[in-house]
Amino acid sequence: MFKAVISEAKEFKKIIDAASNLLDEICFEVSEDGIKARAMDPSHVALVSMDIPKEAFEEYEADVHDIGIDLEAFKKIMNRAKAKDKLILELDEEKNKLNVIFKGTARRKFALALYDVSSSNLQVPDIEYPNEILIKAGAFVDALKDADLVNDHVALKVDDGKFIIYAKGDLNESETIFEEDSEDIISMNIGENARSTFNLEYLKDMTKAASSDDILKICIGTDMPVKIEYDIGGANLTFLLAPRIES
Amino acid sequence: MFKAVISEAKEFKKIIDAASNLLDEICFEVSEDGIKARAMDPSHVALVSMDIPKEAFEEYEADVHDIGIDLEAFKKIMNRAKAKDKLILELDEEKNKLNVIFKGTARRKFALALYDVSSSNLQVPDIEYPNEILIKAGAFVDALKDADLVNDHVALKVDDGKFIIYAKGDLNESETIFEEDSEDIISMNIGENARSTFNLEYLKDMTKAASSDDILKICIGTDMPVKIEYDIGGANLTFLLAPRIES
Amino acid sequence: MFKAVISEAKEFKKIIDAASNLLDEICFEVSEDGIKARAMDPSHVALVSMDIPKEAFEEYEADVHDIGIDLEAFKKIMNRAKAKDKLILELDEEKNKLNVIFKGTARRKFALALYDVSSSNLQVPDIEYPNEILIKAGAFVDALKDADLVNDHVALKVDDGKFIIYAKGDLNESETIFEEDSEDIISMNIGENARSTFNLEYLKDMTKAASSDDILKICIGTDMPVKIEYDIGGANLTFLLAPRIES
Repeated sequence: MFKAVISEAKEFKKIIDAASNLLDEICFEVSEDGIKARAMDPSHVALVSMDIPKEAFEEYEADVHDIGIDLEAFKKIMNRAKAKDKLILELDEEKNKLNVIFKGTARRKFALALYDVSSSNLQVPDIEYPNEILIKAGAFVDALKDADLVNDHVALKVDDGKFIIYAKGDLNESETIFEEDSEDIISMNIGENARSTFNLEYLKDMTKAASSDDILKICIGTDMPVKIEYDIGGANLTFLLAPRIES
Repeated sequence: MFKAVISEAKEFKKIIDAASNLLDEICFEVSEDGIKARAMDPSHVALVSMDIPKEAFEEYEADVHDIGIDLEAFKKIMNRAKAKDKLILELDEEKNKLNVIFKGTARRKFALALYDVSSSNLQVPDIEYPNEILIKAGAFVDALKDADLVNDHVALKVDDGKFIIYAKGDLNESETIFEEDSEDIISMNIGENARSTFNLEYLKDMTKAASSDDILKICIGTDMPVKIEYDIGGANLTFLLAPRIES
Repeated sequence: MFKAVISEAKEFKKIIDAASNLLDEICFEVSEDGIKARAMDPSHVALVSMDIPKEAFEEYEADVHDIGIDLEAFKKIMNRAKAKDKLILELDEEKNKLNVIFKGTARRKFALALYDVSSSNLQVPDIEYPNEILIKAGAFVDALKDADLVNDHVALKVDDGKFIIYAKGDLNESETIFEEDSEDIISMNIGENARSTFNLEYLKDMTKAASSDDILKICIGTDMPVKIEYDIGGANLTFLLAPRIES
């Protein structure tokens, strides 16, 4: 059995948004401790990892199940959540559906067909990073949007104790520089200069679900995958994105 | 002659919106008592009936006239109404136009060409319904939007004293249940269990002009047309929609 | 050298918006007194003139330069300005770029490639107008939007001491009348009756950057270009639009 009650449906919506920007489907591995999911995006450039401990729920009861979900359909349903709705998720093993129930002034129920998505056995690789930056999501996302005006990829750099987001197009350039004492920086743990280039669309998708005051942990090195971690609605989200090989 | 003054142009805009969602053109039958209109939508599935008594106007003076209007053009003009504008409608018999005048800080006048739309002699059929539900428009519209995620038609049901909006798609289902003591229900006058299925787009169009706190009167039976009635801007609107024949 | 600091980036954004609605590129002629630019739109129907005196800047230092700008690219960059950002414009003569720097919580820099746009030697012709109207931009723009519902050109008229915006389509008409004591009129200096017809899209583009409480100075005669002047962000903008020849 699996039944989970979330006190604010809108918070859970953010978690589903974060995953659905990069993935078409996902396998929620539920157990008595909570829900976890690991998946690669369809082009195998990005890894998404999600952990929702049972403490994030108002009520939680579960055996071990793999619940395969079409994220596009789940996202559309979660978009129907209203401001003060409570959310109930309930596995209907007989019908092979996930019941998604909004409880506000009315009781609105969706029955979502399950997919045969097997769990992935993926792990977030345990990489040592030379640099770790804690930054407000809004400031980082703004720098990405700036870069978006000039090219479709962007360099994340550590240079001389500064964290730099840099893009160069055929004509124009954009550059945002964060110093350690910047208002948007919570902390910078700098080991060495570094530079990696990434597909901008992926970075935007990874950070889209964060509110501007959420704190991102960004780990970067030279020609290494970037790791971006943040908490949202009681869940921990971790994204890994492979660097572009610069020619 | 026909001249009517409406103290809030924005309120009259809602009436025109409600009609224009379903109809391309309409014949306003004006008389000394007020304005009425009856029309079928182009595919003859829905009937729209509209009564605006002269009491709904700040000033009202009229002989008997049939005023045929292109609703798309009228709607675009009404969209130009500003927050505190007064509205003056005035028949120009000589030029065969309806003058639509907004009086705010400026005096803005549109002259709208009349169409040769004859009055319809349609009546809202006097059907006895087993069930009559008074419900907040917002709650009903939400249930329709939920259903819209899974299919393009929806069942309105009375089952065991509950009012149920239910849709079933190839994969997923949606269901909203209103009990008599629900916050969104003003009253439920239940005679017997009932079930009819309707085209969702029409139901959405019929209720689109209602604000979420407006009260809808919904009358349903088994394989009967649904009747939806509400008041808006001093006008009474009644919609009748034929059921789908379920195969 | 050229370096200018603007205390509110959002204000300068309005200036660029105003120009970019009509022009693809512009040559900013900078000198120690400030910035000026004169240009015809690509179809040579409208003239745009812009003067930003050095007093409009928080800091300003410049030799004589012609700075050719792709307005579409500059506009996209200015759209990235955030509420309290300071703006720094800085000519990089070596790289032939204009540095556009936003200083808020972060320091975000764009380097914009310069175009080889030569200065135009255009002058705003010194025409004597019989009528000069000072009007709130919002009221004038509303009258244009009304006209837009019925045709793609509009007549600006002075008739019997009134300022009239009039459009006539195949079916419908729109007309806004401003009298001297209208709330939206600051002053009317009327010499003689007048009527000229203009392309509506151009008039909308010319006034789009004005806020609704900004004051437009509109000069009109019969079959003469209309002159529209207003101040925005410390800059003076003047637009001249040739009349349509009515058949």
